[in-house]
Amino acid sequence: MKDDRPISVSVIRRLPRYYRFLGELLEKGVTRISSKELSSLMKITASQIRQDLNCFGGFGQQGYGYQVEILHKEIGEILGLSNEIPAILVGAGNLGKAVAPQLYSKKRGFHLIGAFDIDRRLVGTTLRKSDVAIYHIDDLEEFCEKHKPLAAIVCVPKSSAAQLADRLVNAGIRGFWNFSSYDFPYHYDNIATVNVHLGDSIMTLSYLMTHMDDKGKQPTTLR
Amino acid sequence: MKDDRPISVSVIRRLPRYYRFLGELLEKGVTRISSKELSSLMKITASQIRQDLNCFGGFGQQGYGYQVEILHKEIGEILGLSNEIPAILVGAGNLGKAVAPQLYSKKRGFHLIGAFDIDRRLVGTTLRKSDVAIYHIDDLEEFCEKHKPLAAIVCVPKSSAAQLADRLVNAGIRGFWNFSSYDFPYHYDNIATVNVHLGDSIMTLSYLMTHMDDKGKQPTTLR
Repeated sequence: MKDDRPISVSVIRRLPRYYRFLGELLEKGVTRISSKELSSLMKITASQIRQDLNCFGGFGQQGYGYQVEILHKEIGEILGLSNEIPAILVGAGNLGKAVAPQLYSKKRGFHLIGAFDIDRRLVGTTLRKSDVAIYHIDDLEEFCEKHKPLAAIVCVPKSSAAQLADRLVNAGIRGFWNFSSYDFPYHYDNIATVNVHLGDSIMTLSYLMTHMDDKGKQPTTLR
Repeated sequence: MKDDRPISVSVIRRLPRYYRFLGELLEKGVTRISSKELSSLMKITASQIRQDLNCFGGFGQQGYGYQVEILHKEIGEILGLSNEIPAILVGAGNLGKAVAPQLYSKKRGFHLIGAFDIDRRLVGTTLRKSDVAIYHIDDLEEFCEKHKPLAAIVCVPKSSAAQLADRLVNAGIRGFWNFSSYDFPYHYDNIATVNVHLGDSIMTLSYLMTHMDDKGKQPTTLR
């Protein structure tokens, strides 16, 4: 039975994990899995799994468990993975070049159609192992007018990010995968943003290692 | 009054954010802030903020708010940011080169002392804008025996990660900042791990953009 309450951030964050684990099971030829087995594999309680999946409709059968292929496909649809939303990369330095390949398969919801940088030496080249062309950042608006990307991966320094965010929103961008440490969508409504704060991430590891002696009190793995 | 209950994952994840926001306030010369103002800035409820900070001891005064510099310093200590835990990078490709600079300041809890790769052309060079030397992965154990790093940034393909994880644990590593899509610390106790799943992250954006029409039902920003 589908649960109509708003979907919480925690559930949204778990969805891709389910997709990933189910994909791995599929690769191994597993056709069926109980919530108990999935629970053991993913380190989430079986009841949490059932609760999460109930947000999206009835899956699985009492006593039978879940059919891996069907569940994988359904979650993929909920995630919108075949939408091929046109996307651009802004900032083709090491970080940009490192994260762009996440979009190459076109099975993650996006289709990467262009990249932008301030470095003129990159213009006219393509991102490695792809045919994604790199343009100068001055040509952003013209490109967006013509090709209408809806999402942007932002890999620029914080000092450039605020101004860039405004340009991108004005150029029609409605979704951000944001690696700059500028939390920009606080200023925009109805624009989707996933902020990736690498600095927060490493400081979290520092916390965990600092408090590792508090055995039994601290979680030691952050998924 | 200090709350002695185990610290939840949610609180741990918020700590670096507090540190980041307080650092920015400090840079702007703000000396004092109320939980209400901080709440408005960080988009967390004032009561959540008070609750979180109570886990670590009493901060702030009724009617006065928090002293930014003191709170920033205290959270920095809780996070262990001046510990300079010796760390190594494994995988000096685009991703490794992109994330390693997070450790250069030595103010994030770690001191990056070496990097490793399978590419022999990199051996003998250093990571850009640093004096961190790159060694061949075959020399890992010898280096660890001599220099005793405790943390590792893992930026290798999933296919190499399982075997690498075993080598690293045997070599004395007790903390992982893991970018490979292999969830390795399920097999280890008392080893701290922060997994960064870039694939999950981009799929989350796909979900948010796919469901943006469900106004009022979906959060649009993932911090």
